[in-house]
Amino acid sequence: MTRYVYDFTEGSREMADLLGGKGANLAEMVRMGLPVPPGFTVTTEACRVYLTTGVPPQDLGEQVADHLKTLERAAGRNLGQVDDPLLISVRSGAPFSMPGMMETILDIGLNDYSVLGLAKGPGRERFAWDSYRRLVQMFAGIVMGVDTALFEDALTALKKQHRASVDTDLDTCDLIRLVETYKDIVLEATGEEFPQEPAEQLERAILAVFDSWNTERARLYRRREHIPDDLGTAVTIQIMVFGNLGADSGSGVAFTRDPATGARGVYGDYLPNAQGEDVVAGIRNAVPLQELQRLDPHSFARLRDHMDKLEEHYRDLCDIEFTIERGHLWMLQTRVGKRTAQAAFSIASQLTFEGILSPDQALARIDGEALAHLMFPRFDTRADNEEIAHGIPASPGAAVGAVVFDSAEAVRRAGEGEKVVLVRQETTPDDLPGMVAAQAVLTSRGGKTSHAAVVARGMGKVCVCGADDITVNPRERLFTARDVTVPEGTVISVDGSTGVVHLGAAPLIDSEIMRYFDGGGQPPTEQVPQPVRDVHQMMQRADAVRRLEVRANADTPADAARARRFGAQGIGLCRTEHMFLGDRRELVEAMILARTDTDRDRALQALLPLQREDFAGILQAMDGLPVTIRLLDPPLHEFLPDRIELAVRVARDGALGKAPEPRDAELLAAVNRMHEENPMLGLRGVRLGLVVPGLVAMQVRAIAEAVAQRTAAGGDPRAEIMVPLVDAVEELHLVRHEVNRVLAEVSEETGVHIQCPVGTMIELPRAALTAGKIAEDAEFFSFGTNDLTQTTWGFSRDDVEAAFFSAYLDKGIFQVSPFETIDRDGVGRLVNIAVAEGRAARPGLTIGVCGEHGGDPASVHFFHHAGLDYVSCSPFRIPIARLEAGRAALIEYTPGSDSM
Amino acid sequence: MTRYVYDFTEGSREMADLLGGKGANLAEMVRMGLPVPPGFTVTTEACRVYLTTGVPPQDLGEQVADHLKTLERAAGRNLGQVDDPLLISVRSGAPFSMPGMMETILDIGLNDYSVLGLAKGPGRERFAWDSYRRLVQMFAGIVMGVDTALFEDALTALKKQHRASVDTDLDTCDLIRLVETYKDIVLEATGEEFPQEPAEQLERAILAVFDSWNTERARLYRRREHIPDDLGTAVTIQIMVFGNLGADSGSGVAFTRDPATGARGVYGDYLPNAQGEDVVAGIRNAVPLQELQRLDPHSFARLRDHMDKLEEHYRDLCDIEFTIERGHLWMLQTRVGKRTAQAAFSIASQLTFEGILSPDQALARIDGEALAHLMFPRFDTRADNEEIAHGIPASPGAAVGAVVFDSAEAVRRAGEGEKVVLVRQETTPDDLPGMVAAQAVLTSRGGKTSHAAVVARGMGKVCVCGADDITVNPRERLFTARDVTVPEGTVISVDGSTGVVHLGAAPLIDSEIMRYFDGGGQPPTEQVPQPVRDVHQMMQRADAVRRLEVRANADTPADAARARRFGAQGIGLCRTEHMFLGDRRELVEAMILARTDTDRDRALQALLPLQREDFAGILQAMDGLPVTIRLLDPPLHEFLPDRIELAVRVARDGALGKAPEPRDAELLAAVNRMHEENPMLGLRGVRLGLVVPGLVAMQVRAIAEAVAQRTAAGGDPRAEIMVPLVDAVEELHLVRHEVNRVLAEVSEETGVHIQCPVGTMIELPRAALTAGKIAEDAEFFSFGTNDLTQTTWGFSRDDVEAAFFSAYLDKGIFQVSPFETIDRDGVGRLVNIAVAEGRAARPGLTIGVCGEHGGDPASVHFFHHAGLDYVSCSPFRIPIARLEAGRAALIEYTPGSDSM
Repeated sequence: MTRYVYDFTEGSREMADLLGGKGANLAEMVRMGLPVPPGFTVTTEACRVYLTTGVPPQDLGEQVADHLKTLERAAGRNLGQVDDPLLISVRSGAPFSMPGMMETILDIGLNDYSVLGLAKGPGRERFAWDSYRRLVQMFAGIVMGVDTALFEDALTALKKQHRASVDTDLDTCDLIRLVETYKDIVLEATGEEFPQEPAEQLERAILAVFDSWNTERARLYRRREHIPDDLGTAVTIQIMVFGNLGADSGSGVAFTRDPATGARGVYGDYLPNAQGEDVVAGIRNAVPLQELQRLDPHSFARLRDHMDKLEEHYRDLCDIEFTIERGHLWMLQTRVGKRTAQAAFSIASQLTFEGILSPDQALARIDGEALAHLMFPRFDTRADNEEIAHGIPASPGAAVGAVVFDSAEAVRRAGEGEKVVLVRQETTPDDLPGMVAAQAVLTSRGGKTSHAAVVARGMGKVCVCGADDITVNPRERLFTARDVTVPEGTVISVDGSTGVVHLGAAPLIDSEIMRYFDGGGQPPTEQVPQPVRDVHQMMQRADAVRRLEVRANADTPADAARARRFGAQGIGLCRTEHMFLGDRRELVEAMILARTDTDRDRALQALLPLQREDFAGILQAMDGLPVTIRLLDPPLHEFLPDRIELAVRVARDGALGKAPEPRDAELLAAVNRMHEENPMLGLRGVRLGLVVPGLVAMQVRAIAEAVAQRTAAGGDPRAEIMVPLVDAVEELHLVRHEVNRVLAEVSEETGVHIQCPVGTMIELPRAALTAGKIAEDAEFFSFGTNDLTQTTWGFSRDDVEAAFFSAYLDKGIFQVSPFETIDRDGVGRLVNIAVAEGRAARPGLTIGVCGEHGGDPASVHFFHHAGLDYVSCSPFRIPIARLEAGRAALIEYTPGSDSM
Repeated sequence: MTRYVYDFTEGSREMADLLGGKGANLAEMVRMGLPVPPGFTVTTEACRVYLTTGVPPQDLGEQVADHLKTLERAAGRNLGQVDDPLLISVRSGAPFSMPGMMETILDIGLNDYSVLGLAKGPGRERFAWDSYRRLVQMFAGIVMGVDTALFEDALTALKKQHRASVDTDLDTCDLIRLVETYKDIVLEATGEEFPQEPAEQLERAILAVFDSWNTERARLYRRREHIPDDLGTAVTIQIMVFGNLGADSGSGVAFTRDPATGARGVYGDYLPNAQGEDVVAGIRNAVPLQELQRLDPHSFARLRDHMDKLEEHYRDLCDIEFTIERGHLWMLQTRVGKRTAQAAFSIASQLTFEGILSPDQALARIDGEALAHLMFPRFDTRADNEEIAHGIPASPGAAVGAVVFDSAEAVRRAGEGEKVVLVRQETTPDDLPGMVAAQAVLTSRGGKTSHAAVVARGMGKVCVCGADDITVNPRERLFTARDVTVPEGTVISVDGSTGVVHLGAAPLIDSEIMRYFDGGGQPPTEQVPQPVRDVHQMMQRADAVRRLEVRANADTPADAARARRFGAQGIGLCRTEHMFLGDRRELVEAMILARTDTDRDRALQALLPLQREDFAGILQAMDGLPVTIRLLDPPLHEFLPDRIELAVRVARDGALGKAPEPRDAELLAAVNRMHEENPMLGLRGVRLGLVVPGLVAMQVRAIAEAVAQRTAAGGDPRAEIMVPLVDAVEELHLVRHEVNRVLAEVSEETGVHIQCPVGTMIELPRAALTAGKIAEDAEFFSFGTNDLTQTTWGFSRDDVEAAFFSAYLDKGIFQVSPFETIDRDGVGRLVNIAVAEGRAARPGLTIGVCGEHGGDPASVHFFHHAGLDYVSCSPFRIPIARLEAGRAALIEYTPGSDSM
């Protein structure tokens, strides 16, 4: 017989998957001997059975009844008994925190008789009837599906009749009548009486909590938070205690440390003579927790004692809810508290300092996303620009710009050098050019998976979405926010990390953490602020324990130097196509348009010294460290003008009877000739090298000459040559042959013995699937996970991210964009295959990754466990990758569905 | 010690990999007791060692010397001995036939002394000196690298001096002097004397044959014929026999059966008093082999006897070379003879009839490509159009059209309804539009892997390339062929199956085999020609033994009906996009341009009845058989006008000061909005279904209503619904939900219980890699190997086939285009993974393939062994797929590198 119910005395915090976070932590507190009102938990498994089959598990009723009996025995009173009835709460509790998303029903056990028992005692009458009234409303709404507006209407009508302004103006008689009215409403709406039988109340409440797992808002929340849909919720049944029984009662929340800094102390709020719900709802003003010491020194001392125990036990900041019922302290909930990015570092650092955590444990407590937040520039909080709106912080960072209301205006103003913020009700793919042109995007609708949010995050643009304080009026070219009207052109400040929008240009300040990294991560002195010292401590530890090396994707000497300051251990991807742009475009055009080998060679010869100097500069900046140079990758027509523009220009000239510019005509012919329907799937990568004569030789010669030059200058250049887009070992074999020929030639000419490892990108499924063969000719592998994701899924980031990713996230097809975090089941499986078979063919093969996933925390963990040697990412992501590589080495890994 | 040399008595025909085809078959004849001049074979392994390391294996010299001694003992005379010298031939012999591609050196053992011994005997003087002269020329050319034109010049000079017109006019004295001249040439060209030592001659000849494996022409030939580059050649060393020693000598070739029909009999040619080389060179006219009966009845009888033995032994048509030396018959070579497509069927049929082969063995002897040849229409050979050129038959079929010399003219004339043949020196990607417009492509340069050949085969266009009889003069818009001048507009006939080009419109006749299939493959009567009966017999057998079903890719009732006549067992792919074209384009445009749900719904409602009738027609044609209907797949902008054309039109109007047509402006805006950089990787397939509201519902409703309609009419409609481009089970799950909803709705409305299996294409790597999960929601899989090849390799057929496939074939990166024959290592591995994991998750899952590979013989074998249930291909490929499916069930499979 499967066990679906656990008494609090039988669980522990490790059982959160089965008992939910709430149930597991309550059980843990019971184990610790803390005063918790007795209760038991129905498992998530019971919920899953119910949600899958539509009926509760066969034995559930019986198991619940058994546990209820135990509870009644312990309490010495029964559910629903007429004198001094036992009341219970029925609460949801999922394995991951989903605050407010699911249902809770309090005061189960009240009925027409037990309400009288509850009312016994001085001043309890009103309390009892009000509790019953609330139960009827809550139960009818949640369990029986009655529209709760009906109850609100009845209440309002009664208040009107009594000219009462607040609920508390109603007396017991009113409440008794109101309960009657409520019960009538239930009967009318459902054809069913409000159930008087407490056991029935309990049973139906449990199923209603199960059902609340699948409400629209709960589903949406899970999608946003990447919580799987199939976990289900546990249900906690617990004896009710009351903080609203007089001056010797009350409820509060407490933190074992300052959630902002991690400093020990007494932090929290206390509300005398109130239930926990009232504290959260903020109906009355709570007092600082320290006041409790004055109000009830005994309970305060006990609470402090419990808090110390919890801290010691959880070894982390704990967030606590408690109630004092007539001088008796009850612990109602605890959990490891949420915190800001900076607090995460402070707390971890503080706990290490106190000896509570080892440095490795501290490292596991923080994460790369928190570090990324600390690196963004932020608005100076000392400035006092007016806050005009607050939305969902969808893509972090701080941006200042003039308000514009459409894409065309954004593009126009940005073209004139103005910084703009695109403000829309919501964005569509039509807004893309404007989003590209803008500093930030602000929308009044949509959540974290809206089009604006997804696209902005993909572009690294600041975005605040769903700011429902504002009303966008593009027709009149203005928006209103609270009581401010903001016309087009007004400068605003958008904080993508907090969701706050300010009027005017709020002053930006560089992050001190960014300055620390850009200074080369030197050990901070005492004068340096604590947050920097905290980060330094974590980085030191991460570097000490990580196995993965971290390299940078960098194409210029300046980027290379910065990456080195940020801690890069080499360059994992030096793209050469950027070196083909700018003032070299003319030479590149000449190379592409060449009609004869001589013309082409002349253009290549002119490019050669320029490329050589590029490489020499980068090799100098990374002296002594590997620099992996990728041969030219993109299709050549990317270096030519836009086809549509040319066609339109030539057509206009034609319509006006003018002969087109000869250059235009020639370019158009070339562009038409080279046009590809799907350039991503066209003549690029190694294919170019194999069909454009002289291209590989020129690039390799530039690398070899740069190496010779740096060696002659006493340097230690370590160039590696990387061949992109290889599908088959034969391609690599041919290119390698050419590479070795040129290296030998330049060695001969310069007298410098030049040796560069030659390796390949693994960025096509076929390369991964035949990695064993490819390894025979490759001295290293580097996963190009952008292209690999593109081809494995068969969609291109550019084309589909804007078109349907937000829909896919909303529908739950993605938990997260596979371009952001590596898709373990598909792309990850190919990575695992290639690593295993590549190393089998060539033991000790160096393997890295140079796609954008190299700087994504979850992906870094995957790459660590896949056995890669390094990750390579953009310079600004290097600290994050270092930190996560360290964490990956410490944190146990659940391989999930990774397989081969 | 590795053994590198095998005596003929030690080998067998199974050893062709080691001994080459020639060596293995000679050994086999020795085993059979046939008279073969003694000899031995140096293995391909020795060749491989030599080619890899640059030096022959250490023991090779010794092993050759040992075997030579054995040979001398057997012959009773020594190599190079002065009286009656032993002479030997040194011949190449690769595991696969490479006729004329590698080198042969005859008469090894002759030198200044042994030539005198060979000259002894009546009338042998001239023969001996001529042999010596030939040895010097052959050896110097092949072994010593002397330009053989020097020898030809000397010979011509001597002939001029003697006013001799042919070689035979020269007398012994002339030849003796010529040998001296030749030896001088060798000395002058190489600084080295012609080697007199026979052992040195032999050793160097062997290495020269090894080297000839890697000549340019041999490499090219291997690439064309898909022979791996790393096999190496064996070398056969054999005692020379001479057919040119008088009237009682001669040489001939013989076939054990008529190579055209397979009828038993005596077929071949005999040339009295000649060496084998003379027969092949056609210097003198040979006589029919029957004549030998009169000339030398004894040898003829022995030959007949040997031929019978070979037939019985090889159980196939054998092709034989023999020499009679002074009345003694020697067998010099045998192999299974090549044959025409028709002969292949005839011979297999005849051998079955004679009881030599079982029906299954006969089936293994023929193949689908041969059948494809028999199905093409061909020119009526009775017509006598002038043959003006002969090139390489690069893409089969027969086409008639007016000559054009450039792409623009081809497009222009084709646009006016004229049939054209594009004639170019060679084609480039610029010629693509012309190739599309033309009936056939004819080039004067390039081989089977030239751009023209590769692209034409890809398009299924007739192509003859490398027709070096013709000179193309596009400037004067004419070509000359032999002595005919052909101006633009002249009608010519191009036979892509034979390479022949005729002047004028040669009459085309339908293939009788095609008529047979189109008649439903009825058992032929006695009146029907034998070839049809042969094919019928093979098809019967193939159908009886095959496990794979064969379905058709068909989108119209007419195609469905034809496919059924051709033997299709259902439709594996019914594309619905073709139903969105033609006069429905306006509705489709309206659907795409709809600004409101109402507008879109109106357009969809208008499309609904049209789609329903499409489906009803197809279901009727395939009544009782499965019809797999794929939901809309291509990106929507494919249904809108071309972006460039619109932009140009609007720009022209603008330049002329006209407002653009409102429709143009609207369309341009829509096309720009929907423009994708890489439409193959964009919003298409299931993604469309998930983001365009109502599209899936409309298509499913059309299917369901068609099923209901056919059911009501007493039919047996078996529609299956196929979801394209699925990446993740979640996509399929959502669509399935929608499908089931609509099916239930229509069932309810019509009272017909409609059940359609819902399955998915597996056409993206991720789908294959997560097939186990996808199978949970898919009732069938169908591999879309076109897209799967595209994404696995990361190149699109349209974009790259023309751009670099011919270069890739030439460089040996491909043996064959992966779009033509499935790439086992990459794409095939994904297929294997998906089959194994799909069936593990859902035992009995139906799995097919509907990419073009479904009609490719090699791929059909792969799919059979991968365990698929069916292949689906275009109607005309159905007989080929049926035949190959049968053969696949019989022929043992070498899985190669297929793996999981």
